[in-house]
Parts: sequence; structure tokens; C-alpha cells
Amino acid sequence: MIRMNDLIRKKRDGLALGADEIRDMIASYTCGDIPDYQMSAMMMAIYFNGMNRDETLALTLAMRDSGDTLDLSGISGIKVDKHSTGGVGDKTSIALAPLVAAAGAKVAKMSGRGLGHTGGTIDKLECFPGFSTELSEKAFIDQVNKTGLAIMGQTKDLAPADKKLYALRDVTATVEQISLIASSVMSKKLACGADGIVLDVKCGSGAFMKDISSARALAREMTEIGKGAGKKMRALITDMDEPLGYAVGNILEVKEAIETLKGKGPEDFTKLCLLLGSRMLMLSGICDDEDKASELLMKKIEDGSALEKLADFVKAQGGDERYVYEPDRFKEAEKVTELKAWDNGYIEKIICDEAGFSSMLLGAGRAKKEDKIDSCAGIVFEKKKGDEVKTGDVIARLYHGSAVGAGASLARLKAAVTIGTDKVPDKKILIDEIE
Amino acid sequence: MIRMNDLIRKKRDGLALGADEIRDMIASYTCGDIPDYQMSAMMMAIYFNGMNRDETLALTLAMRDSGDTLDLSGISGIKVDKHSTGGVGDKTSIALAPLVAAAGAKVAKMSGRGLGHTGGTIDKLECFPGFSTELSEKAFIDQVNKTGLAIMGQTKDLAPADKKLYALRDVTATVEQISLIASSVMSKKLACGADGIVLDVKCGSGAFMKDISSARALAREMTEIGKGAGKKMRALITDMDEPLGYAVGNILEVKEAIETLKGKGPEDFTKLCLLLGSRMLMLSGICDDEDKASELLMKKIEDGSALEKLADFVKAQGGDERYVYEPDRFKEAEKVTELKAWDNGYIEKIICDEAGFSSMLLGAGRAKKEDKIDSCAGIVFEKKKGDEVKTGDVIARLYHGSAVGAGASLARLKAAVTIGTDKVPDKKILIDEIE
Repeated sequence: MIRMNDLIRKKRDGLALGADEIRDMIASYTCGDIPDYQMSAMMMAIYFNGMNRDETLALTLAMRDSGDTLDLSGISGIKVDKHSTGGVGDKTSIALAPLVAAAGAKVAKMSGRGLGHTGGTIDKLECFPGFSTELSEKAFIDQVNKTGLAIMGQTKDLAPADKKLYALRDVTATVEQISLIASSVMSKKLACGADGIVLDVKCGSGAFMKDISSARALAREMTEIGKGAGKKMRALITDMDEPLGYAVGNILEVKEAIETLKGKGPEDFTKLCLLLGSRMLMLSGICDDEDKASELLMKKIEDGSALEKLADFVKAQGGDERYVYEPDRFKEAEKVTELKAWDNGYIEKIICDEAGFSSMLLGAGRAKKEDKIDSCAGIVFEKKKGDEVKTGDVIARLYHGSAVGAGASLARLKAAVTIGTDKVPDKKILIDEIE
Repeated sequence: MIRMNDLIRKKRDGLALGADEIRDMIASYTCGDIPDYQMSAMMMAIYFNGMNRDETLALTLAMRDSGDTLDLSGISGIKVDKHSTGGVGDKTSIALAPLVAAAGAKVAKMSGRGLGHTGGTIDKLECFPGFSTELSEKAFIDQVNKTGLAIMGQTKDLAPADKKLYALRDVTATVEQISLIASSVMSKKLACGADGIVLDVKCGSGAFMKDISSARALAREMTEIGKGAGKKMRALITDMDEPLGYAVGNILEVKEAIETLKGKGPEDFTKLCLLLGSRMLMLSGICDDEDKASELLMKKIEDGSALEKLADFVKAQGGDERYVYEPDRFKEAEKVTELKAWDNGYIEKIICDEAGFSSMLLGAGRAKKEDKIDSCAGIVFEKKKGDEVKTGDVIARLYHGSAVGAGASLARLKAAVTIGTDKVPDKKILIDEIE
């Protein structure tokens, strides 16, 4: 107890904590020897005084080591992983993982469910009937060796220190601190054991980081942690100022990912998959330049092997792979409500997190951990930023159950969309890259 | 829960909390609706961003109102109180209260025990056999009306919010914040109901405030709170760079207070009593200038009425008043160990809190709440700062029980004393005054 008080004072007074001090603190906190009220004071002191690179790395490693870590040495070759800081319509893993695996990369991935506009990757994968993400470590490793990819749900004991600390930060206004955000993400990523990690740091109205400079800072912080832990790292800062692709909602997004693997996906989403995928191939040592990697990935789309890899992957985890080839098999929402243009002009803005909230109101996401997701629910946009519209054109279709009124969701989405009179300057999905 | 998170965020972001928000927060915290881990994050945010005068006053009043408040309206006239921020050898209340009461002031005082070098005022008063500080509110008020003074122990329910909050701050490195310190002290003082309060803010190596600027800031903060609550306020900043008077330890200090009321006390301590006492008489409306008030108090010492008032007071609270007139009746320590000068020169420094710690080691104070005090134990200095010494002269006598070795205490005290070759510039007890 007395020692923790001293550590809080040290951080409060602007001094750096030692790696040993941080390790002992996290270990003691995880097992309950340090009470929440001391840790929350520490978090607030860190909020104000920050942590340097060494402290942030030590915190990350301490949280990584607070629980189980995956040993991927049973998988031959370089294992690559990808992490996105999350956004609206982010179905990237569903398309990206089979795409890079088709090109020869080894993807051994853990994913979560999460709160928000839609479910997480796990929720989306479970849209395939029979699909299971509860794999033993052995089955997981065997599958990667055989198929090139496997995705399992996060085990309960993955970085429990982070879980406990995040819950505390969430109710003590200490979430928004860059070292704490970076170490939280990276502790889980590092526990998953990949050799190379590509980070997709989202930036814009639908992202946690609203402006470029904070997105850049987070990308740099996470990249440095990864390197400090001996990993190969690349980080892209990508646009999340409007929803990614056209679809927001679990089954709707899975269908869009399937279309993308057929070469018929939205332009922005396809480009993002190629950008992230080419970096994963480079970290894997399969390609040594972005253009060649991108070409290779395009070939895997064109020759159908990327889609086939998705089918193999779904089948390997117990899912019905016919849904990959015949996506009409997926259940459809009972009702569709349209948002129509109320003016002539150009879509000037779609406030991205508001669109996400609108989708959650339809039942596509969870507000609380206990909430059930309606996997059919969500939004499919017909128009995106820069598109011309005439009064009465459909801007978006809202999919929902018959028991769920779409009124609030529709009003919210309408308020999120601005129709302007001027053409919108060209959009770019890639904002910056950090090595 | 959600609301407290918002309040923490508001303070974290440098905004001022509203008086209603502070009142509700303290009420909810006191009854357990707000958990410690949120409050400690709030305290750390306040540590960094501070509180303005309105916030500090609101916090003080909220803590005052969290428990019982004394209603002194049954006492005729203006009630005055004094508060000292504490130091080594601070026996002021024992002499000062009867002194000003002898001059006509009404002193209705609550005191504490406390941790540290010696006991608190209550422990010292209990050195008079039979003395009780457990008075009913009625008995307390009757006694002030009759005798002019009464001192009772703090009730359990005096500012319980402060008690809870202080315990939390103590283990989360959030004690040293001026608004929090000031509101903690003043919430209890205001709950005691006096009309005028004289503050004695100590400054120096034996005080909580080590330098003049922070002592001044604390004095100003407390004065403003008091005025905001409608009280008459005066604050003195006084020296605590060496022990006050010669005696440190419960019975030893009581005897020194008695000597002082006979006009035979240490120069610094006598002067402090006159300084504080004259301000109390002015707040009482008995005198309208410091010099006249000081003269009146001197007269009360010279004519024996101050000592008599102490005897009346001791008797009124069940104590044996013969001890006032015959202090040799007090029990003496079993053993005396001398600290002798190891060189010729002048006492250049007595590190005050170290001297206090030395006294605690002898048994005069409590390290933990459960510790028992040896009321005979302590230190009596023969030499103070500026006094000339020759090798072998007694600098101080350490009083202790035969079972208590004086070795550690002696070593500590010796290390606290510096003998220099040069004369020491004149000392002043009064450093500054704030109205």
C-alpha cells in the first residue's frame, strides 16, 4: 500500500517510473493487492504527466504477461496480424485475412466482439451458420498450418490486467491518454504472438482519433511499442470520416466482404484491403515492394483463390461454406426503410459516428455487453460523400426487424447527412503511413 | 456513476465545477453512492487543475454539512476559536484558551488527538487526572457561559465526508493540494460554530508548509473560505523552524503552558500566545487594537487570573485543578538521557520535524492510531537556535520509560542539531499576517 502511494507521487511529480516498478504494480493490481482507488489516481496522474516510451513499453509488456500468451512457434514461417482501431462499416478482417492467406501469408488471429455500431469480427464471422471461434490452441495452430489462416475468439485470460484497467479507466475519465490507449491495444496484440503487425489507425468523425495529428501520434506510439517488443511493424492512417464501403451491419458487411473478394466491392474498401494486405505480405517476406504485393493480391481476387480461401476458412471452423458462394442464403431483415434525398446537390458529409449510432439503434450493435445483436440489421448506403443526388433519390436503406421502429434511427441518420451545392474534393482512403 | 465520470472529465479538462455539483458529489460520496476509485481520480484531477475560490468554498460547506454541526447560539456574545496547522511543541491551546477567556473572550473549542510527535490538545488536557473531554452539547454550552471556555473532543460525526476523503487522499498522493488542505481544515472548524477564527499557519522545517509562499497561500485560502462562510477571520504565519518553546511531549508541554500563564514561559511561546490572543480579543470585539489587547492579556498573566482560569476550566471538566498550582504533582518519566554539545559554538539549526520524530520514538506520540502515548515522555531543550554552547553542555534532556531505549531517539536528535561557529541572526516568531 505505502509503496503504491509513493509510485503515484512519483508519477504525479513528473518523474518516470522504472520498468520493475511498472511490472510489480500491474502484477499487484491484477491480483487485487493494489485497490482500484489507488490505480485510478495513478491513471489520472498519467493522464496529466504522460509516460515516456520505456514506461509505455513496460506497461504493455506487464499487461501482456498478466495472462495467457499464445505460442505460435508451431506454425512454420512468419505470422502476420492486423489491428484496426475500429470504425463504422469496418469489415476488413473478413476480406483481408483470406486475401493475404491466398497469397501465402500466415494469419493466426484473435478477435473480439465489442460494443458499438455493429458487432466485432467474431459476431460477423458467426453469421455463417455453424461457424465457431472457440478453437483449442492446437486446432488453431493446425488450421493455420493447413489453411493459412484461423481466427479465434479472445480467451478470457488474454491480458486480464488490461481488461481490469480499461474498465476502471472507462468510469474515471482516464481513457483518452495516448500511452494508455496504445498499451491497451498492444498488450492484447502482443499476447497473440504474431511476428509482424500491420496497424490500421482510423482517423475522422467515425474514429476514436478525430484528427490527423492524434491519429499519427497513436500510430507512432503503437509502432514503437511493437518494435520495442521485437515485432515487425507498419502502420497506416486511413480515412474514417464516412462509413467504410456501403454496408454497416453484420450480415450486410459479410456480404460486402464476399463481393470484394470477387472483385466487385466498394472502391474505398477494396483499396484499403490492398493497402493493408500489401504491407502484410511485405512483413511476411513474400513481397518486397508495395506495388508487386498489391498486384499479387489483385491476381488472387481475379483468379478466385481469395474467395476460395474464405470458403476453406469458413469450412475449417465448422461454418457452412455454401454461403460464401451463394450469399443470397443469408437471412434478410424483415423490413427496409429508405432515407431519401430532400434536395438536389452533392453529399457533402456523412457524420460517421452518427451513422454508426443509427445502425446500433436498428439492432446491429450492442449498447451494453448483454445486448443481443440482430445480425440482419444495419444500413446500406446508396450514395457516399461526393455523389450527386436529386430530391427523392435513395441515399440509404435501413434494414431492421418488424418490431423495431426505424423512426429514431432514420432521424439520426438524416441529421448526419449534409447535402451541399458544391462538388466535394477528391477523397483519399490512405492519409499517412508510419514505419 | 455516469454523472461522476462526467464531473471528473470536467475537472480534468480544467473547467470549474458548480456549487450544486460539488454538494451532490460530496453527499453521494459520503453515503457510498460514489465509489472511492472515482473520487480518487477526481482528487488527482483537482491536484493538477486546482479549484477556484467558489469551488473551494462549496467543497468546504458540503463537507461541513455532511455531519453534525454545533449550534453555539446558546452562548451569549461572540464566540472565538483558534486553529493551528500543527508543529513540534505546539501546546498553544492549553495556555491560550484560558488566557483569552480570562480577558473576557468566549472560547468553545473542539480538539483532536491526532498522529505525530506528541498527542493532540485532547491528549495533553487528559494529563490532568480526571479531566474529561466527553461533554454533552448542553454541558459544553453551559460551561462556556459560566467559565468562558470549554474544550471537547471531536464528535464522531464531525464532517464525516472530510474524514473519508482525507483517508482516501492519504493513500493516493493527493494530500498536498492547497484547496483540499484548506477545505479539510475549514470544514471541521466551521462545523464547530464559532463566529471568529484566528488561524496560526506554521511555516518551517517542523510545519506542513515548509516555505513562506506556500504558508501564505494556505493562510489566504483558509481566510477566504471563512469569510465566504460569514466568519470573522485573521491568520498569522508563525515560525516552526525549531520546536516551539523548550518542551516537546505531553506532560512536559502542559507544565510549560502553566509556567507561561505564570509569566515564566519561554519567550517565543509567550509571544505567540500574546499575538494569537490579541487577535482573538479583537475578533471578539473586546479590544480594537493589537497593542491594547496584548497589554490586557499581559495584565491577566501578571494578576494571576489567567492561571486561575486554567484551574477553573480543568475543574469544570472534572480534572484535578491542584496540578495547575502544583505542577510537581505530575508524574515524571523513569529515565532521563542527555544530549550534550560535541563542540563549541552556536546552535545554528534544529531540524524541527526530526526533533519531533525523536520525541515520538521516546513514546510521546503515536505512529499509528492504535498506539498508546507515554504522557511523561518527550524532550526538554536547554538550548535553542542562536544559543551559545560549549563542549559538554546539555543541549536537551530526553525523558522516557525504563523499557524504552533512548538510543535511536538520541541519534536522531543529534543529527537534527547543527552547531556552527557564527552567531545566528535574530529569530522572529511572527512571519506575516493576513486579514
